[in-house]
This record gives sequence, structure tokens and C-alpha cells, in this order.
Amino acid sequence: MPELRKDPIVGRWVIISTDRAKRPTDFARESVKPKGGFCPFCYGNENKTPPEILAYRASPNGGPPPAKDSPGWTIRVVPNKFPALGIEGNLNRQAEGMFDKMNGVGAHEVIIETPDHNATMASMPVRRVEDVLWAFRDRILDLRQDRRFKYILLFKNHGEAAGASLEHPHSQLIALPILPRTVIDELEGAKQYYLYKERCVFCDIIHQETESAVRLVSENENFLTLAPYAPRFPFETWILPKRHESAFEHMSSQMYADLARSVKDLLTRADRVLENPAYNLVIHTSPVQEPQQDHYHWHIEFMPKLTKTAGFEWGTGFYINPTPPEEAARFLREAVVVAEPSQVVRA
Amino acid sequence: MPELRKDPIVGRWVIISTDRAKRPTDFARESVKPKGGFCPFCYGNENKTPPEILAYRASPNGGPPPAKDSPGWTIRVVPNKFPALGIEGNLNRQAEGMFDKMNGVGAHEVIIETPDHNATMASMPVRRVEDVLWAFRDRILDLRQDRRFKYILLFKNHGEAAGASLEHPHSQLIALPILPRTVIDELEGAKQYYLYKERCVFCDIIHQETESAVRLVSENENFLTLAPYAPRFPFETWILPKRHESAFEHMSSQMYADLARSVKDLLTRADRVLENPAYNLVIHTSPVQEPQQDHYHWHIEFMPKLTKTAGFEWGTGFYINPTPPEEAARFLREAVVVAEPSQVVRA
Repeated sequence: MPELRKDPIVGRWVIISTDRAKRPTDFARESVKPKGGFCPFCYGNENKTPPEILAYRASPNGGPPPAKDSPGWTIRVVPNKFPALGIEGNLNRQAEGMFDKMNGVGAHEVIIETPDHNATMASMPVRRVEDVLWAFRDRILDLRQDRRFKYILLFKNHGEAAGASLEHPHSQLIALPILPRTVIDELEGAKQYYLYKERCVFCDIIHQETESAVRLVSENENFLTLAPYAPRFPFETWILPKRHESAFEHMSSQMYADLARSVKDLLTRADRVLENPAYNLVIHTSPVQEPQQDHYHWHIEFMPKLTKTAGFEWGTGFYINPTPPEEAARFLREAVVVAEPSQVVRA
Repeated sequence: MPELRKDPIVGRWVIISTDRAKRPTDFARESVKPKGGFCPFCYGNENKTPPEILAYRASPNGGPPPAKDSPGWTIRVVPNKFPALGIEGNLNRQAEGMFDKMNGVGAHEVIIETPDHNATMASMPVRRVEDVLWAFRDRILDLRQDRRFKYILLFKNHGEAAGASLEHPHSQLIALPILPRTVIDELEGAKQYYLYKERCVFCDIIHQETESAVRLVSENENFLTLAPYAPRFPFETWILPKRHESAFEHMSSQMYADLARSVKDLLTRADRVLENPAYNLVIHTSPVQEPQQDHYHWHIEFMPKLTKTAGFEWGTGFYINPTPPEEAARFLREAVVVAEPSQVVRA
């Protein structure tokens, strides 16, 4: 008998197949492989993107500061050349008969994570992954000064099947003038739980999952990686800070290295178990103008692309997950991952 | 400047790209083509599916009634061999620590639409499409007697990219023991509009869209086919009954032929314009136990699979639609579709 499980945050029910649980090899997935060709994100092609907003570069030894939009960077942030939203202007909310519209005001940026075209977040040194996280923070701190923006979403599409149109390692940032639906659902759900229990629902999840351990993937001092109780997708995995914190950008500076380790660790495990899957990785965090919330707890959601979203899901918002999270967590937990020396020393 | 538009029913905002609207040929889509191989839905393989629940067969001329699970049917409904939900048992709601679960009780059926493996709903005679709609109704009327079921979803995945695992033309039915999230959102949104305006939001949409005509695709006496104002996906199209009716299964019998014409017409236009795209088609209707609602209006949503849902969409529930619905409607409207003689005679 399949099981219906309810996500304790948004109240979404999912169907978990328990009889014929799909193992990693049961999915007809395509491994992400670099195809090559011209790449606007590689060294020497800096003029093929809009001018950079931010770049990390090694400081020259007494020489002149490196020129903008020239090679030598380790991370580079540029406006998306084909932005989903435009940075100029006002919202100009208006009616169109019975309908409502406004200008698509917002920011759409690309974080080029490394100059190495063939690297991945899983193969990059932890230190470089950490730099990506710092770049995320830098961009949030800059953009949140613009009071038009209500929400800043950071996400990564890896592989064509997950919606990536360029293969060079990159993440994206979209600053939105309104709170998106999914964010409202999560905030409201978490608030209802808080009003009823006077505790953060995510903190409770961390407590219960640590005790039961059946859905744990890995952990370090500051972060827990686990399969959620009611995942929409097979091998959906979350990374949560162990201590309550509602906003990504408020994370204390000593936590960045641990988060980088957790991200790299999860992606490495996923690459092993699912053979370099395409995936989406999304940072779920508080709205920028109200970052402190007792009821909300920022976290990362990782969704490998193993199944297709079909009519049933579009019609119901209900998901059929063929792999119980306990199984998915076990596969990921048991994957052999060799930590970098720094991590071993630290532990 | 892109435009943000709000869906008047669920309040979901979408981003409509207006600058570089994507035309049909701009999408890297795969046409759906039959691949062949063994098919459990073809004549002679009736024993490869669970026993039939319902079948339409031509009446024999005085001979014995045709045997169940034998060839000769024109439509055949069978339980899904790998059901997402199990038909036996009770819900047995229970806690798992802080989490909630219940048994996955429900029905999961397959409507085999025709014995012709290579037919499509677009190529089938209108009369055959109409029979599929009658079979939908027959199954709803039967299953709604089971008071465990709160919602019955009818949907069709066409093509592998849209989640179809078998290519023989078929639709699916899932009866659920709870109201799914998307349905609740739609019902609640429509109710709020009704409480404020004292009119059905869908009836208002039909009125405004008929007047403006910019998003109309086609119509007949009883149904209107249009691109919604704030579509999530390029070329998303809805078919709505012109007169208020909240439940699909309450549609008067003389409307079936017109609905069949509208469905075939839309799918034919989509095949022309988008070159046989994969698609999802979903019937949005009232919960079976409360089918009469002044605020809700049943309809069909058609979503060709032209783009990939990525991190942004998963993270926000927000959609970026590269084709304004006015453009999509124009392409579909201008497609040359030759109606069947019966339709011409009727008109």
C-alpha cells in the first residue's frame, strides 16, 4: 500500500511508493556531460557578457589593480544577458479590465562560479565553493538596499534537463518586486506551526530527524543534510543550519566553510549515487525586508532531475515519489565520499 | 520591459517576456513520434493489463455478447498496472512523531482511448473523442459512490517529455482521498472573487475575453478555447464551457459533441503550430462530493511541453513565460484546421 505523507511546513501531501521503491539505477536519467563549444563565461570572453557587477580576483603584488571585465577572476557576477526582469523603472501597478499587471521590475544576475569550464560544485575545492556562498551574500547585501525588491532568490540549474542553457558552472539570482507564492506558502505554514507550538517547525524537524536518523545523509558542526519526510521528488535533499536562523545572509562568517563542505559533500554523493545527475538547487530564505523571523529557518533544497512532472502533478500540486526518502537517504549516506584534508583535520 | 501578470483565480504572478517573444520555432522541442515495440494496450494483449473495468464495444447482431478482456472494443478502461494508490482499505490517519501520514487509498485507472496504436486525439474522428469524454463521465459517476474519494482527476500525458511511459493513446484517472493543494487554491481563489464580486470569476473571464478577442483561439456553440491572461507556460490554453457549470460530469449530454470538437480542434492546432508537441491535458472540476458551486467553473487546461521547469520555478512557484498569450493565441487561431464534414454541416 502506498503511503500519503504530509509536508509539515506547507501542508502538501505526497504519495510515496513503498512497494516497488525505485533504486538509483531504475531512473532513465542522462548524466550531465560537458559538450564544449563557445562559452561566454570562459576567460577571454568577458566582453560577451554585460559588464561585471562583482568579481573576486587575487590581489596583485604591488602591481596595478586588475582591470574590470578582464581574465584573472575566480568568481564573476554579471547581469543576465537575457534577463527575466528589467532593473529600471517602477512597478506601475495597473488594471487590464478585470486583470492585474505591473512592470517586470527586478534584477537577474549570473554568478559564474569558477573560470574552469569543466569544474562542478562537487569537484571544486571547498574553498572555492565557499567563495560562491560569499558572493551570494555580497549580492544580497547590495540588492536589499533597493526597497523595490521584496525577495531575492538564489538558485542553480545544473544540466540541460534541469533547465541550464549554458554548461559553464554558474548560479543565478533573481530579485523580485513581490513575494512569490511558494515563499508565502512556506512562511505562512511555518507561522501557523509556530503559533500553535511556539517552536520553529524546522528546528523540530532537525530535532526529530537527528534522533531517528533514518533520513539523515550527513552532518558537520553547523549543518544537517537530510531527506525530508514528504519529498516531492526522488532523492530530494535539504541542507539546514542546526541553529535557528531565518536568513541566509545573516549566517555567521565561521559557518560559510561548513556550508561549503555540506554542499560539496551532498553534490559529490549525488554524483556517485545518481551518476552526475542534472539538478536544481535552491536557497530558501526570508524576504529581504523582514529577515528576522522566529518561525522561519533558511535552508537549501536540492532536487535531482530523475522524473518528469506530468499532468497529475500539474493538476493537483500533488507529487508521486517512487523512492521513499529513507531509501534515498540510505543510498546517499552510504556513498563513499573522500573528504578534503582540511575537513579531516577539522574533524 | 517584461510584464508581471496575475492569474485572477489563484493569484499567481507570472513573468511574461514581451521584448523577445518566443515564436513556435524558437523552442527546442521534440516532436512526439511513435517508436513501436510491444504494446499492452493493443488488440490481443488484453491479458497484459489488469481485467477491464469498462469497455465500449459494438453490439453484436444477435450473437452472444462479446467476452470481457477480448479484442473488439473501441474504448477500454483498466486499473493501472502500477497504481500510484491502492483501492483497498481505509485511510488510517496516524502520526509519525511530528509528521502525519495515511494509507495511500485511491483509484488509478487508464482509459485506453482507441485500439489504433498510432492514432492521436487530434487525428481521431470527433465521434471517438466524444466517446472518451463519455468514458470519463462513466468512471466519475461510478467512483463518486465511494465516499472515501474526495477528488477525481482526469488527465492525459502525451509524449515521453510530458511524462507518458506508454505511447498508445490513453488518459488516466486518479481518485484521491483528500483535496489536493492546487484544487483547494483554485476553489478558494474563485470563492474569494465570488464573495467580493458576486459573480463567477471564470464567467467574467469568458465575458471579457470574448469582448477583447485578443486571446481567443476558437469557439463553438458551447465552448470557448483561449489563452489565459497569466499562463505559466508558453502556449498554455484553456477550454471553458460558456455556460456556468461547476462539474464536468454535470455537463448536459448535448454538449459532449461540442467538447469533443473543441478538444480535437485545439490539439490539431497545437500539432500544426508546434509540430506534434508533447503535452499535458488536465480536467479541472469540482470535488466529487460537492459538485454544485456557484463560484467554480470546470474547464480543461492544456500545457504543451516546450520549456523546462527549473530552480526559479521550484523555488518560487513563479513562472517565466517567454511567449505572451496574445502571441500564442494568434498562432493557434491562424493555424489552418479543416473541420470534419459533420462540423461544417452543423455550423
